[in-house]
Order: sequence, then structure tokens, then C-alpha cells
Amino acid sequence: GCLRWAQAVLGVPKLLDWYCLCALGVITALISFFMDSTVLKLIDAHRWLFRAVGSSAVLQYLCWTLYPIALTTFSTSFTQSLCPQSAGSGAPEVKTILSGVMLEGYLTLTHLAAKVVGMTCTLAAGSTIFLGKVGPFVHVSCMVGSFLDRVRSSIRGTSEKDLHSDMLVAGAAVAMASCFGCPISGVLFSVEVMSSHYSVRNYCRAFFAAVSGAVMFRLLAVFSSEQVTIMAMFKTRYQVEFPFDLPEMFFFAILGLLCGAICCAYLFLHRWLVTFTRTSAITSRILATDKALYSGLVALLLASMTFPHGIGQFMGSRMNMRELLNSLFDGRRLGALCSNSSVPRPEEVDPEYLWLEWCHPRVPVYGTLGIFLVMKFWMLLLATTMPMPAGYFMPVVIYGAAIGRFVGEVVAYLFPEGMQSEGILSPINPGGYSLAGAAAFSGAVTHTLSPALLVFEMTGQIAHVLPVVLATLISNALCRRYQPSFYDGIIILRK
Amino acid sequence: GCLRWAQAVLGVPKLLDWYCLCALGVITALISFFMDSTVLKLIDAHRWLFRAVGSSAVLQYLCWTLYPIALTTFSTSFTQSLCPQSAGSGAPEVKTILSGVMLEGYLTLTHLAAKVVGMTCTLAAGSTIFLGKVGPFVHVSCMVGSFLDRVRSSIRGTSEKDLHSDMLVAGAAVAMASCFGCPISGVLFSVEVMSSHYSVRNYCRAFFAAVSGAVMFRLLAVFSSEQVTIMAMFKTRYQVEFPFDLPEMFFFAILGLLCGAICCAYLFLHRWLVTFTRTSAITSRILATDKALYSGLVALLLASMTFPHGIGQFMGSRMNMRELLNSLFDGRRLGALCSNSSVPRPEEVDPEYLWLEWCHPRVPVYGTLGIFLVMKFWMLLLATTMPMPAGYFMPVVIYGAAIGRFVGEVVAYLFPEGMQSEGILSPINPGGYSLAGAAAFSGAVTHTLSPALLVFEMTGQIAHVLPVVLATLISNALCRRYQPSFYDGIIILRK
Repeated sequence: GCLRWAQAVLGVPKLLDWYCLCALGVITALISFFMDSTVLKLIDAHRWLFRAVGSSAVLQYLCWTLYPIALTTFSTSFTQSLCPQSAGSGAPEVKTILSGVMLEGYLTLTHLAAKVVGMTCTLAAGSTIFLGKVGPFVHVSCMVGSFLDRVRSSIRGTSEKDLHSDMLVAGAAVAMASCFGCPISGVLFSVEVMSSHYSVRNYCRAFFAAVSGAVMFRLLAVFSSEQVTIMAMFKTRYQVEFPFDLPEMFFFAILGLLCGAICCAYLFLHRWLVTFTRTSAITSRILATDKALYSGLVALLLASMTFPHGIGQFMGSRMNMRELLNSLFDGRRLGALCSNSSVPRPEEVDPEYLWLEWCHPRVPVYGTLGIFLVMKFWMLLLATTMPMPAGYFMPVVIYGAAIGRFVGEVVAYLFPEGMQSEGILSPINPGGYSLAGAAAFSGAVTHTLSPALLVFEMTGQIAHVLPVVLATLISNALCRRYQPSFYDGIIILRK
Repeated sequence: GCLRWAQAVLGVPKLLDWYCLCALGVITALISFFMDSTVLKLIDAHRWLFRAVGSSAVLQYLCWTLYPIALTTFSTSFTQSLCPQSAGSGAPEVKTILSGVMLEGYLTLTHLAAKVVGMTCTLAAGSTIFLGKVGPFVHVSCMVGSFLDRVRSSIRGTSEKDLHSDMLVAGAAVAMASCFGCPISGVLFSVEVMSSHYSVRNYCRAFFAAVSGAVMFRLLAVFSSEQVTIMAMFKTRYQVEFPFDLPEMFFFAILGLLCGAICCAYLFLHRWLVTFTRTSAITSRILATDKALYSGLVALLLASMTFPHGIGQFMGSRMNMRELLNSLFDGRRLGALCSNSSVPRPEEVDPEYLWLEWCHPRVPVYGTLGIFLVMKFWMLLLATTMPMPAGYFMPVVIYGAAIGRFVGEVVAYLFPEGMQSEGILSPINPGGYSLAGAAAFSGAVTHTLSPALLVFEMTGQIAHVLPVVLATLISNALCRRYQPSFYDGIIILRK
């Protein structure tokens, strides 16, 4: 009686679908937020430890390397023992499920737990391992969606066994919204990645769930006093009066070509490396018997490379993923900042002076950005072979932003006063190139155009819309011509 | 030989599709730009005439009313004689064609000419008639698309008779891009409005064509010295540091509800009024025999109402459509500006001081906005019955922006210092409410969510993304529950 009365007041069953969609957004945002804060605490603990061991180089090296090794081996062994299928991104599997092929054991709560715990450890290893969160989160939110779908069926009293795709499609859209607070690009990304035909009926539902997720995610940031109000995640302060000069469109087009070319190499080498690790005598034996050992060895190599008193000092390796992206999206010219400043690098990363991490007394900023690009290229490829839950979208966004920043700094160096086209002389903003690079490279890797919108929602500024979209289109055209997308590549390798 | 060589160099037939899509964008943008500049010249001529007749009230009244009457009667009689089907929006017809029903004579070049000439005259009547450009432009770009499709078939040497839908879908996306320079929301709008199932293959093509159109449209604005560089069409200067306070989300939700409710009334009365004009003895006779007379009578009524020395002085009727939207999107508080200023209204509209048009010595700004909302409601309904090519999207955007501005000014009046939530006290920005109102109302009228993105692309600022999307979702939910969309309503009336 009481239950029925509550149902009548709430408008069940008419509005039940919408309650479920809202719950999907809210639950996913809660998972995302608490995962983020746990990761941030773990990264802070690592920084504290690194400071606490004193100035002994050996101890510092051990502290720097052992922490990510411990996390990645735990992540690998935990997920392998609980649910071996949870390794990797998860987005290709969701794509397969949405195309109609039901994969067993991919939408269970055990899988969800394995994914969330494993991913938290992976992310806590920070920019050393350089892996992200979006791909597995697409999978996580789809698992939440399928769980809510079963709840809905039981409330309705029907014992339907087949899954309804609307909650899964909404789940795919919610993921991006609750990772970055970007609802519109989340929906668009799920349209592009997940299916070749899209039902516009699902679009509204996905949109509603994505907005619920994004609002919840940003509200949590306000309530936890991380931010004073609802704002973009990577806030920028570009000037809006005169965003860029007309001739710069040419450089944005070149940036698009460059991103497309690098992306082709990246995708080809990724498939080659995955095949190599499976067929090579040594790695295939380790991967077959002891996956955690493999993860630990790779983590040791990656951590040694990023050690801040070694090569790491030239590639800004003290910053975590979010700080890296913030420093790359900065609207000021790194070249000018570094050559004019005589401030030494602080003991620890200072959020107000992230750009100092790119300055080095002996190497100009073009050098540090170049070393970052060269080193992270093979390190990112190597990290993708680790058998644990990890996303490959965020690293690609950061890598693309670094390509764009490099091009932008070179353009700013060539035209220190800006380009005079219609009478007004305004200095170059290399941050715009970072936006374009991030969108163009990540768009090319995934064969999507929605990253062009994502970068605007992430930074809260949209003045560069036309150059960014242009660069994304060019890099996409190049990459679609020569390579399958990252997700399709994984599906091809599975077969 | 020479032709073949050229074809081989250009990569025909492999790249032929893409050349056609690019041509579609460029041609549509050229039409849009030259139509805009013609309209602006005609509006300037009207302003010059109004100034030239001196201070005689009778002459001024005649000048103010005869000009739009002449334009609308010409538009009606010209299009009726050349191609009677070209009256109205055109978007519902495109929707019908895309759903597979071939309407005869809707994609011919005669129709294109009638539409372009008629629409130019309609738009030149300015904010008196208060009609827009988007709907007919969807039709125009689809006609360009079908023409290019025939060109493509003849180059390929195949004599295919059936139309390929890819150029039509791209055409629908190009329209918005070349009206406002907003490629992403243009594509999204066409996905939402045009079909219930969407092929993701068409998405890329539509995107490419839309970007070509938007780049061309903005480049033309730079080359004609209208703007110094590629910028948003309705540029705003909101502060990006602290866009809005958290409790304001509540008022944005109320704004969404309000827009949804007004939209339900608008859609219901629109269908009622169209049915009434068809069945009523007097109007049906006039509409059957002399459509131009009907247009002239309606124009006389509308122009008399907006006469700047009559009621028009209370409703900012001296501004044209673009100035109206610019004044409504302004980030400053009209209430504070008007009560503090002692400057009298200038002889002519000053682009730098558009807000003065909303100030009146005897009526506070809430009054002028309220009069605008009440008067324009029935005037807009009446204008939609005029049998000539005209768009109903832009007026709805402006009307929604006025609703939002009204709510925003009231909120700013209630909290003159801003709302203290997390320690920071920042004044209310009523411009954000205008954005939300424009998106929520136009989204509800068309049953789409893409206007939420459109307003960001139009203004070049995206800091208000979550409140705007929230308001749009709420108004959409309300309106979808009770009324069919504007386009579906027209299709229902046709049957």
C-alpha cells in the first residue's frame, strides 16, 4: 500500500525511465568523483613520501619507482584474480555489445568492482605510467546502466531477460560527462564511437543522463570546496577580444596535418607492439604466466625514465595528469616566460607556477617540449601493453596538447609581435594551438570529431572554434585514410 | 585529354564527394553573406529615409509603415507568381523529403531563386515584421545540395535519377553554419530535426560541409572589413573567472519551466491561428484571391505597433534583429545602467549604446522588457501566417533571450550584490539568463537540444554550459509532453 502510494506520487511507471537515467548519471558521477579524490590523495601521499625520504638520491629513486610498481602490480594481480576480462580500456567491448553481440561476464557487478579498484590504482601511478580514465569509465557507466536496467525491469514486474540498449547508450554518454563535466561532447562522442546508426530517440535520454552526471560531478567539486562555483575543469584565461589572427589558420591546418601523421605512426606501432608482445618468446611467456611481473617491469622502466633528477627534469614529469594539461593549455607564452624568469624551480610543484616545470636552466622550452614528445611517444605505446584497467584517451589528449603547444611556441617564436593582417597587432596565443592539437590528435586516434567540442567544454572558452574544428577535420581525414581507429584496432587484434 | 589530366590531378572520382561537399558549404555561405549585406543595406536605406523625412509625424509614420508593406507585398506577390510552394519556412518540407517522400518542385532552381529573393525582402523589413532566415536557408542549402548532386552524377557519367540523401543531409547542416558561423551546432541541429534515425557515415560529410560553410562565412566577414579577424557573430564580454553563483542554478531551472510553459502556449496558439485564418470567412477569402493584400495588411498592423514614436518606444523597435540579440546578450545589468544614466536616447541607434534603446524616462527596464514580451508574442504569431518565405527560428531565439533577460534582470534586482554561497560575492550577470532563455525557448519550440550549443558558438563563450543545458532540458521536457514541435505542427496542418 505504502509502496504503491509512493509510486503513484512519483509518477512511476510513466517517469520510471527518467528516474533510472537520472540515477545512472548521479551514480556514475559519484563513482567518478570519489575515484578522483582517492587518486589525488594517493598522489599526494607519493609526493609526501618523496619529500620525506630526504635528499639521498638512492632513496628518492627507490621511492619514485617502487610506488608506481607497487600500484600497477597490485592493479594487475587484483583484476586478474577477480575478473581477467577487466584489463584494458573496455570501450571496444562496449562497442561490440552495442552492435548486438552479447559478451558474457562483461556487465556484472564483479567486473564493475574489479574495474573501479584496478583503475584507481592505475590512475594513482600518475603521469609516470601516463594512463587515463575515460575508456574504462565508458564500461563502468554501462555496467551501472545494465544494473539499473535490471532494477527497472523488477520494479515493472516484468522478468525480461534481454537487455535494453537505451540504458547502455546513455551509459556511454554519461562517462565523458562525469569524467570532465562535459555533457554535450559526451553525447556526441558516444554517437560517433558507439554505433554506425543512431536512433534519435536514444539521443534525448543520453543527453538527460549526461547532464545529470555532469551537474552532479561539478556540484560535488563545489561541495568539497575544490572550486568556488560550477566552472570548467581546466579553466583558461584567453583574451576574448581578439582570439587569433587570420593567417594563423594556415598554421592550424599544418598542425592538423602533423597530428594526423603522428597519429598514423602511433596507431600502426600500437598494433605492431601488441602483436610483438604476444608473439615474442620472452614477453609472451611472462604475459601468460605472470602478468603482474610484466606490469612491474614496464612500470620500473617508465618510472626510471621519468625520475625527476634524471631525464624526468626535461619533461615536466613532476606534474600529475591534470597539472600537465593545465600547464599546456596556459594562454601565456612559455618561451617568453622561461627566458625572462630567473626563479629556480620550486621544491615541489606549485599549482600557480606550473609553467616553471617546463623551464630548464640549460635547455630552452622547445627542447623540453621536444623531449616530452619523443619520450612519451614510446612510453605511451609501452604503457598500453600493460594488462590492467586503463584508459588511453586522456594520455592522447595530453600528448596532442603537447604537439599543439610545441607548434604554438614555434609560431610565437617566429612572430614575436604577432601577425599583422587587418591593422591590429596582437601577440600569438600558443594555448589555442594546444587546444587544436589536443582535439586533432585525440580525434584522429579515435576517428571522432567530438574532441573539438570537448576541449571547449573542458576549458570553458570557445573563441577558437573554427581553427580547432579545421585541425580536427584535417587530422581525421588523414588518419581515416590510412589507419583503423584505436578501438577498431583492438577489436581487429582480438579476432 | 586536358580534362582527364585535370581530373587525375585533383583525384576525381575518389575525392569528388568531398569537393562537392566543400562547394556546397562555400556556395551556401556566399549566398548567405550576400543576402546579409543586401539586407543590411536595405535596412540602412530605411533608416536614412526615416531621418530624411524630417520631424513631421505623419511623414515619419508613412515612411515607417510603407517600407515594410512594400517589401512584404513584393515578397509575397513575387514568390507566389514564380513558385507558390516557396512560402513559409521550408524546413518541414525538407524533413518530409529526407524521410523518403519526394515532393515535386521543391528542389528546383526556380524555387531557389524565389526563396532567395523573397527572403531578402522579408528580412529587409527588419524587426518590424520580426522574421528570420534559418528555416528557408535549410531549404536553400538543400536545393544547392541537390543541384551539386546532379553535377556530381553528370561528372561521374552515370545518369542516376534518384537523389542521394548525403548531399541533402549535409545541406541541412550547412544552413545553420552559414547563417551564424556555428558548424557544430548546425550538424547537431540537423541530426535532431531532420530524421529519427541517423547514419554516422553522413555525420562526417555533414560536418565537413558545415565547417567549409562556416569558415567561408566568417572569412567573408573579415574580407569585407566587417570584423578584424574570425570571431563569434554576437561577441560577448562576460567575466570568465566567476561565471555564476551556485544558487543561481535554481533560477535557471525556473527560467526553463517558464520558457516551456510559454512555448506550449505559443505552439498551441500558432496552430489555432493558422487554422483560424484558413477557415474564417474574411481571411480565407483574402488568402485565396490576394495573398499580397493579406501580407500588406498584416505588415501595416505590425509596423503601426512598432512605430518608434508610438508604442514602439517602449519595446526597442528601432533596433534590427542582430542589434536586438546583441543588446539582450549584453553582460551588464540593464536595470543599473538605465537608472544611473541621464543620457537621452540618441537620434539613431548607436551600436555602442544599444542598451539605451531599452531605457525609457518614464518606464523602468522591466516594463520595456515586459511590453516587448507581451506585444511580440501575438505579433510573432500573426507574422507566421504571412504567405511568404520566412524563418521562424531566429525570432524565437530573440524572444527567448528577452524572456531570459527579463528573469535575469529581476534576479539581479532581488540580489543587487550577488548571492553569497562559498564566500565570494559577485554581481549577477543577466546575460547568462539571456543565453539560457534563448536556448530553452528555441529548443522547446523545435523540440531540439542543440540550441544550447548554438548560443555558445554564437557568443564565443561557454562558461554557462551547465545552467543553459539544464534550462533547455527542462523546457524541452515540458513542451514535448504537451505539444508537437513547430515543424511537426506545420506537417500536421498540411495533412
